[in-house]
Amino acid sequence: MPSSSPSRVSVSQLKPRLLLGPGPSPVSGRVLRALAHPTLGHLDPQFLTLLDDVSLRLRGIFGTGNEATLAVSGTGSAGMQAALANLLQPGDTAIVGIHGYFGGRMAEMARRLGAGVVAVEAEWGRVLEPERLIDAHRAHPRARLLSVVHAETSTGVRQPIREVGAYLSGTETLFVVDAVTSLGGIPVGVDAVGIDVCYSATQKCLGAPPGLAPISLSSRAVDVVRRRKVPVSSWYLDVGLLMDYLGAGHVYHHTASSNLFFALHEALQEIEEEGLEARHDRHRRVGARLRLELGARGFTLFGDPGHQLPELTSVRLPDGADAVRLRHALLERYGIEVGGGLGPTGASVWRIGLMGNGASEASVERLVGAVDELGIGSV
Amino acid sequence: MPSSSPSRVSVSQLKPRLLLGPGPSPVSGRVLRALAHPTLGHLDPQFLTLLDDVSLRLRGIFGTGNEATLAVSGTGSAGMQAALANLLQPGDTAIVGIHGYFGGRMAEMARRLGAGVVAVEAEWGRVLEPERLIDAHRAHPRARLLSVVHAETSTGVRQPIREVGAYLSGTETLFVVDAVTSLGGIPVGVDAVGIDVCYSATQKCLGAPPGLAPISLSSRAVDVVRRRKVPVSSWYLDVGLLMDYLGAGHVYHHTASSNLFFALHEALQEIEEEGLEARHDRHRRVGARLRLELGARGFTLFGDPGHQLPELTSVRLPDGADAVRLRHALLERYGIEVGGGLGPTGASVWRIGLMGNGASEASVERLVGAVDELGIGSV
Repeated sequence: MPSSSPSRVSVSQLKPRLLLGPGPSPVSGRVLRALAHPTLGHLDPQFLTLLDDVSLRLRGIFGTGNEATLAVSGTGSAGMQAALANLLQPGDTAIVGIHGYFGGRMAEMARRLGAGVVAVEAEWGRVLEPERLIDAHRAHPRARLLSVVHAETSTGVRQPIREVGAYLSGTETLFVVDAVTSLGGIPVGVDAVGIDVCYSATQKCLGAPPGLAPISLSSRAVDVVRRRKVPVSSWYLDVGLLMDYLGAGHVYHHTASSNLFFALHEALQEIEEEGLEARHDRHRRVGARLRLELGARGFTLFGDPGHQLPELTSVRLPDGADAVRLRHALLERYGIEVGGGLGPTGASVWRIGLMGNGASEASVERLVGAVDELGIGSV
Repeated sequence: MPSSSPSRVSVSQLKPRLLLGPGPSPVSGRVLRALAHPTLGHLDPQFLTLLDDVSLRLRGIFGTGNEATLAVSGTGSAGMQAALANLLQPGDTAIVGIHGYFGGRMAEMARRLGAGVVAVEAEWGRVLEPERLIDAHRAHPRARLLSVVHAETSTGVRQPIREVGAYLSGTETLFVVDAVTSLGGIPVGVDAVGIDVCYSATQKCLGAPPGLAPISLSSRAVDVVRRRKVPVSSWYLDVGLLMDYLGAGHVYHHTASSNLFFALHEALQEIEEEGLEARHDRHRRVGARLRLELGARGFTLFGDPGHQLPELTSVRLPDGADAVRLRHALLERYGIEVGGGLGPTGASVWRIGLMGNGASEASVERLVGAVDELGIGSV
């Protein structure tokens, strides 16, 4: 909070940026126009129909038939909070894979909810070997859940989830997958993988503005929520109440932001028109091009090249280049946003997101052009 | 969630409504344009300056010098959740005034957080006599907080807060006031009244779309949060972490929705241009006109006329009129949204909001014209 009068700003004078950081990603003009459609009431029959349609489209992208598929009124972190707050009761055991910043956040949330956390850790930039997660479960077979981050936004690494999903489906432990940076960019496949709770965010590969967190719960996850002995400590994120409102009954719970749902609906429509496979292909193709261009300029991948995400690339700059100073120059002189590091990667890496509408050849060319003009990697 | 394919909808084809219900209120074209300004990153220096400016302007409207004045990334209910989750620890006592739906919600949230709730109840439509709240505190002098709803959206009643604020300032109990439907419509006066935690929502008298919850904490409330023995169970709504991000340090916490903040900033700018006192006058004048017109048509106030809110009027329809059917007719035939009742008022009342941009003579005339055409109250 400012302690003295800040410089007064006007929204119309804010300079636009090319958003190539770890999210938000660029929002299309069409989605922005939908966002600005006149606000509707949260119980207007037109809006309730739109909510149903959002749920249906989200199921398609999650790859699930889960009835409990909805969007929580908060950002991606609210999705994580909702997943854990609904499943965990004090005294439960949570096995949490940590191979980057967001795994650490999950462990912190689980602890605050009174769970005993079994942390399975890997170095930042590596994946968690599925066998290690499975071994942790063998040691803690009564764990309420096992969670991993599918696309670690802090490192750019893609976590394998298939083996763990297949293994856990034969147990009573729920599989929780953070798909914040994966949904819409790479296949998630909730039902095929056997994920019980999967959550995401609107402002990454889905191409909508931030503010909503899509989430999907399997029927066995819903059963766990319904059979809780103590109510969910957060009334706001109680999935039972959310299902009563966002679901078929439409019982008033909170004032869902119609404008954010308009934008999400339009973004989901764009995805449907492109086709999900074509969208995944586009992310793969453009990400590969970026890494080729950066490699030619002396940038090196931060994470395991064998498990690199298409949509989020974490790179060390060529020797001698000041990652922080150059990131600011990129923003100020070229209007291009890339992300800095988090935690141990803080001052030494750039995190470059080519997500949603940002996943284009034009983005790569504009970024690489600026990199060249800034003289990074030139000899 | 839909069990079969819902009718496909397109955002551009949604019919606009005149929003005269209990919120959201009509959003001006100027604020909608700000909402649709191209998305910025949550750590962009331009956006951080805007956040500071939003905090400064909110302080003016709350009537406070509180440094901890910010907007939570969720709806008004998230503001309530944040207020209670940060102040209450398991075993604490919370004195909760209940004279309508939202007081009941506060009690429910407090219980879920492990607090012992001392409910001070009054009939829906009445106010809570300040002396009764003070007596409850005398019986529970070690209560962590005492909370009331300033503007009960379920009944249209304005709760007196001055006496309780003055009394509690000499105690260790924190005064929590729900200003969801009051902020921007009637004076709140956080510092003058002695409120420790006050929260609101953007979509009522502030005139912005839903999605953010302004909140302000006194330094003694912040001390209580900082001295907690157990961390806040909700990482997402932890005020300490939110202050580190939204405050001067700007440490990453979550991806605040720049678009929602653009809209809030523009709405706060509109309020500054109108002047807060002039805005309160407008709400008072237009609300009085509405009640005059409705009274002449045989509508009767649901709540205590001596404590009627200007901005939210709960009325019973003239004898024989079917409140539910006519409310749907108003929406479908005239494009005007008014609210139905909640709880005991369910099928018998309309809740009419004249809030923010909706508080105009034109709104009253359009509503009354439709009421007349529908033949309500004619003999």
